[in-house]
Amino acid sequence: MTDNGKPLFKKLALIGVGLIGSSIARAARKHGLVGEIVGSARTKETRRVALELKLVDHAYENAREAVKDADLIILCTPIGTYEGIAKEIQDVLSPGAIVTDVGSVKQKAVEAIEPHIPSGVHFIAGHPVAGSEKSGPAAGYAELFENRWCILTPSEKSDEAAVEKLSEFWATLGSNVEKMDPKHHDLVLGITSHLPHLIAYTMVGVADDLSRVTDSEVINYSAAGFRDFTRIAASDPTMWRDVFLSNKEATLEILGRFTEELFALQRAIRTGDGDMLHDYFTRTRAIRRGIIEAGQDTD
Amino acid sequence: MTDNGKPLFKKLALIGVGLIGSSIARAARKHGLVGEIVGSARTKETRRVALELKLVDHAYENAREAVKDADLIILCTPIGTYEGIAKEIQDVLSPGAIVTDVGSVKQKAVEAIEPHIPSGVHFIAGHPVAGSEKSGPAAGYAELFENRWCILTPSEKSDEAAVEKLSEFWATLGSNVEKMDPKHHDLVLGITSHLPHLIAYTMVGVADDLSRVTDSEVINYSAAGFRDFTRIAASDPTMWRDVFLSNKEATLEILGRFTEELFALQRAIRTGDGDMLHDYFTRTRAIRRGIIEAGQDTD
Repeated sequence: MTDNGKPLFKKLALIGVGLIGSSIARAARKHGLVGEIVGSARTKETRRVALELKLVDHAYENAREAVKDADLIILCTPIGTYEGIAKEIQDVLSPGAIVTDVGSVKQKAVEAIEPHIPSGVHFIAGHPVAGSEKSGPAAGYAELFENRWCILTPSEKSDEAAVEKLSEFWATLGSNVEKMDPKHHDLVLGITSHLPHLIAYTMVGVADDLSRVTDSEVINYSAAGFRDFTRIAASDPTMWRDVFLSNKEATLEILGRFTEELFALQRAIRTGDGDMLHDYFTRTRAIRRGIIEAGQDTD
Repeated sequence: MTDNGKPLFKKLALIGVGLIGSSIARAARKHGLVGEIVGSARTKETRRVALELKLVDHAYENAREAVKDADLIILCTPIGTYEGIAKEIQDVLSPGAIVTDVGSVKQKAVEAIEPHIPSGVHFIAGHPVAGSEKSGPAAGYAELFENRWCILTPSEKSDEAAVEKLSEFWATLGSNVEKMDPKHHDLVLGITSHLPHLIAYTMVGVADDLSRVTDSEVINYSAAGFRDFTRIAASDPTMWRDVFLSNKEATLEILGRFTEELFALQRAIRTGDGDMLHDYFTRTRAIRRGIIEAGQDTD
């Protein structure tokens, strides 16, 4: 609820009611931010669960039906679906409405959506940096965005008042709202999120493949480091496929640097260069301290 | 304490009183497993802290002094020090004493220690699969080994009664004791622990290096996946240098498989092969479920 006691938006339309969409529904209701919530979901089962859990007041199969009269529309589907949805909804959007998204890649999101937004409707791409390895409407919870970052990447075309209103929405859900250029966002998140996920997927794939080591051995001794990778590598396959395909350029660039660095360490192991390894491991240890001091993790 | 109310060992000598050594001291005292505990540490400060915290009854600079009259000797120093220590203590070991270690690599540990152990003294290599990214005598705690695996890698020469006695020691500290061939241990742990550490070190090094992204951005958005890597990459540099140098063969082999796999995923991203990525990510998700079902992590 806003300071004047009225909801910030009259009608919120969630396109996709999975982990993120359902968490927004729960949090928006909890904070009295919206009058009505509707959602669209391709599968009947998701619509059934969303209605049963009272996440939405109405559930539709198509985005086009859901966005009618909505003043806030949030795309919570994989990035690969954005262009089709933007085309589907473009001529039923209400004047003055805000369209945003929650995708992990922003440059491609802007390219897929912005060209289809009619004048008088405000598009502002967004990314709540929050999630879990679970998916589906039942997995969400209202506190998902509390003390997490939400990065908005408004373009030159974005209306300032609309950006402020959307910032207030996310801030009320508990997020720390930050603004960033879409391309820069994709590089930063490429490092802090996309590459770690790709590496974790690879590592778990390798473990699964080395047949001289049994599954049960890998699982029994997973606490020694591997476990942290499996948590990341359990994330939603469709979402992550689209992340890598949409952030191809930055991912390949960072991956190139990663491989270069890994080869340098591999060479040090092969040649027995203990000083190089020790110096490297000492440097990385200091970064961890920075994260604890910044309050992003506990000691 | 054993069933008959007597300590299992009369005198425990800890060679090295860091995270693991000090945790063994705390746990052994808590369970009444040993009569006396002595320790050796190279640095004066470690000896001072170990005495002040009453972790040991006597603290020595040299391993040779510490092992006199001890019936259990545990090497808790980096693997690179093993051979020197084995040579230093070999002619002062008491007949019937058990010598063991806690190193993360076992084949090299056996090669470094076993040839120097006189007949009548029992050497059994061991690896409690437990730890934290912290180090030093103050960082230890008595519960570190509870519900964790402890892998013993006895050789053909190992005395069966001595193996059983050492197993009882670790089981009383709360560990699940498992026996394994040293070479197989190094392959399994290479996958579940050594490679994850190397990858995490590399990932954190890359982030540190990409100077167009400021430290504060990498740190602010670390919760998106990167944070889990920094925790691993904060582990003790000397210990991990020695792990990679000592487990060179298995590390390079697994690293080769990892790079091959990573290149296949990189190619799929470059060529836009979404089906390959989706199939891969679906397969890795199943492994995570296995770990939760095995009770090695919580959902």
